[in-house]
Amino acid sequence: MKAILSINAGSSSVKISVYAASHHKATPREIADAQVSGLTAPPAKLTYNRQGTSVEKDKEVDANSQDTAFRLLLDTLINDEALKDIASKDDIAIACHRIVHGGDYDDAQLITKDTYHHIEALSDLAPLHNGAALGIVDACINQLPSTHNVACFDSQYHQSIPAHIATYPINQDIAKKNKLRKYGFHGLSYAFIARSTAEFLHKDESSLNIIALHLGSGASACAIHNGQSRDTSMGLTPLAGLPGATRSGSVDPSLVFHYASDVGKLSPASTSQLHISRAEEILNKKSGWSALTGTTDFATIASRATPEQALAFDLFVDRVAGFIGSYFVSLGGDVDALVFAGGIGEKSWELRDAVARKVQCLGFRVDEGKNKGPRKGIVDEISGDGGKKVLVCQTDEQFEMARMCAAKEELWA
Amino acid sequence: MKAILSINAGSSSVKISVYAASHHKATPREIADAQVSGLTAPPAKLTYNRQGTSVEKDKEVDANSQDTAFRLLLDTLINDEALKDIASKDDIAIACHRIVHGGDYDDAQLITKDTYHHIEALSDLAPLHNGAALGIVDACINQLPSTHNVACFDSQYHQSIPAHIATYPINQDIAKKNKLRKYGFHGLSYAFIARSTAEFLHKDESSLNIIALHLGSGASACAIHNGQSRDTSMGLTPLAGLPGATRSGSVDPSLVFHYASDVGKLSPASTSQLHISRAEEILNKKSGWSALTGTTDFATIASRATPEQALAFDLFVDRVAGFIGSYFVSLGGDVDALVFAGGIGEKSWELRDAVARKVQCLGFRVDEGKNKGPRKGIVDEISGDGGKKVLVCQTDEQFEMARMCAAKEELWA
Repeated sequence: MKAILSINAGSSSVKISVYAASHHKATPREIADAQVSGLTAPPAKLTYNRQGTSVEKDKEVDANSQDTAFRLLLDTLINDEALKDIASKDDIAIACHRIVHGGDYDDAQLITKDTYHHIEALSDLAPLHNGAALGIVDACINQLPSTHNVACFDSQYHQSIPAHIATYPINQDIAKKNKLRKYGFHGLSYAFIARSTAEFLHKDESSLNIIALHLGSGASACAIHNGQSRDTSMGLTPLAGLPGATRSGSVDPSLVFHYASDVGKLSPASTSQLHISRAEEILNKKSGWSALTGTTDFATIASRATPEQALAFDLFVDRVAGFIGSYFVSLGGDVDALVFAGGIGEKSWELRDAVARKVQCLGFRVDEGKNKGPRKGIVDEISGDGGKKVLVCQTDEQFEMARMCAAKEELWA
Repeated sequence: MKAILSINAGSSSVKISVYAASHHKATPREIADAQVSGLTAPPAKLTYNRQGTSVEKDKEVDANSQDTAFRLLLDTLINDEALKDIASKDDIAIACHRIVHGGDYDDAQLITKDTYHHIEALSDLAPLHNGAALGIVDACINQLPSTHNVACFDSQYHQSIPAHIATYPINQDIAKKNKLRKYGFHGLSYAFIARSTAEFLHKDESSLNIIALHLGSGASACAIHNGQSRDTSMGLTPLAGLPGATRSGSVDPSLVFHYASDVGKLSPASTSQLHISRAEEILNKKSGWSALTGTTDFATIASRATPEQALAFDLFVDRVAGFIGSYFVSLGGDVDALVFAGGIGEKSWELRDAVARKVQCLGFRVDEGKNKGPRKGIVDEISGDGGKKVLVCQTDEQFEMARMCAAKEELWA
């Protein structure tokens, strides 16, 4: 039996799911989850659940950094006597970390000195995204010296994208030197979605063709062919493709030079190690539907109560439907299912309804009752009569990371 | 009878087509065409045809600016005694100018002091594109004082794009102030394609739904709904969307900040009036398939003789097919025809063949013989048996501009 921490660190929160795995390739069993949120908007709050039972909920705590938040979460787990699998730090066999940008890695990596420095160097490609996770890796190395740390990358699932799709038509010497190509993200989610959908459809994952949508405050689409990523909407960084809560998605690459002067200058968010241009900060943090509507809450936007909300909703539906059309062609029309996932994909029946209407011409239909009804199971079918399959998947990146660790031979030798 | 000059000025060439129109709303009749090319790669060369007869071909001439080239072209027309419609400058009633960026204009504009200054101000949005044309407008005003000058905009056809498609999800105060939205280009071509296709299909243009592809050294796609542009792949500037000969098309908006340092600085191509960032120059002038293959000649690329050419060809096919899928959805699957146009769209059977195979799942098919065979007429059908219609259109932006002038009441009052 090994206890596995699946750690997902954002800029203002740290989330840990705790799993137990009995043997190599075992399906991990979730035994607890804990998170500290509000690190950048104090007071920070702790929530802790043990095997589905709420132990703490939004308890105000003193934490103002990833490091202090992680220490607090660790103490919470260790000090809970009812959580028998973790009595001391030494009981934590594996800590796996969600890292956004993994460059050319096509698999989760045991973190050694070498891989650590390589991942640190990669962060230049995604300074806004890798920083928080690396902070937690440091905390783990310091606070859990006997634990194996594993990096699970959001980009690794997309290594299968063919060169003619992943290549940007720019100077290739510079592209190779600076590692400029489409990487894609949300890959932990897409790996979960592909496996779960194949199980649901009783298909071999290696022959599964789906269009998957991970729609949350960050949003992307993925064409999955024979169980592998063939194309995805994010690019070199998570900025490209669909808009998100504060992210513009794809815009004319000239746009930002007409948005403000000095967009090439460093943003105040830069550190001595990580360089963030003002442009990247504007397009990642000051745009998206919050820039259109003043809120990041998609349920409010889906109400279409104001002209701005209606505009943001229609804009998002248009962009999502566009990618579905594009990926339908990429898959040669041979599509087993259209799968909605992510916070918005799972919760917003309005979004699913509006998107499905737009792509009816491709043969997709949703049943109104099933679409609005409560979800049944990890994967749930909402297709209408006579239409191609439309599914909703409750994706779980934390579980996917634990599963990767349970499957990783070197951790069980 | 009025003589109309249709003038298309690029950075290294000036092209004039001469039309005669007998009355308001008459179909203009082409009576001559002349061009000076190689302005930036001396010696410049003059080519002149009168009513289909070659008078001069690649004659070396002394011209190193738009102004001198225009003067030379004007002299050529006036001094040709066989060109009876133009015996003196005063015989030139109308000079119409292809201007790339027309901001919010939804119609061709008679150039007055006011419109001139407005167009000049707009050029901030497209400094790489509007400059050459404005130079020729100046030359016309100076050299043809009694001629009416008309600005025809590549963007005007796309004013019908709905707000939720044209809006970028960015701060809307800044978007409004700086006029940041999708404009779209190649609109003179799309107007020609829409009208010609409607005639060919014996449909009312107002009920025509097509996916049109203008594929040349600049390339774009357009979803035309009820005869009007509903979406197009270019954006705020011609950079967005499909790659071109030297243009990257859409890339992750972060990319250029990882390509080189100081991309926000002014490029040496900037003038005191027009500001061009290094980033815009790199992505517009140093990218595209020439960056992938070393050639701008698409016929060479379509031979797929090297791995680089194969990559560039496959990349272009992938991006074009993606837009077809996206616009098929935008038109709700109700598509009268897929129309290829532009230099590559008209000439490369390999490209049409490869694209058609990719979008076979949407019901399009091409007939191999018709696709490879010579073109019959302005619009020609190359559809395969049982498939949706696939057409090739020999688009003609010069004619479209002359037609706009013939139709413009204020020029005939």
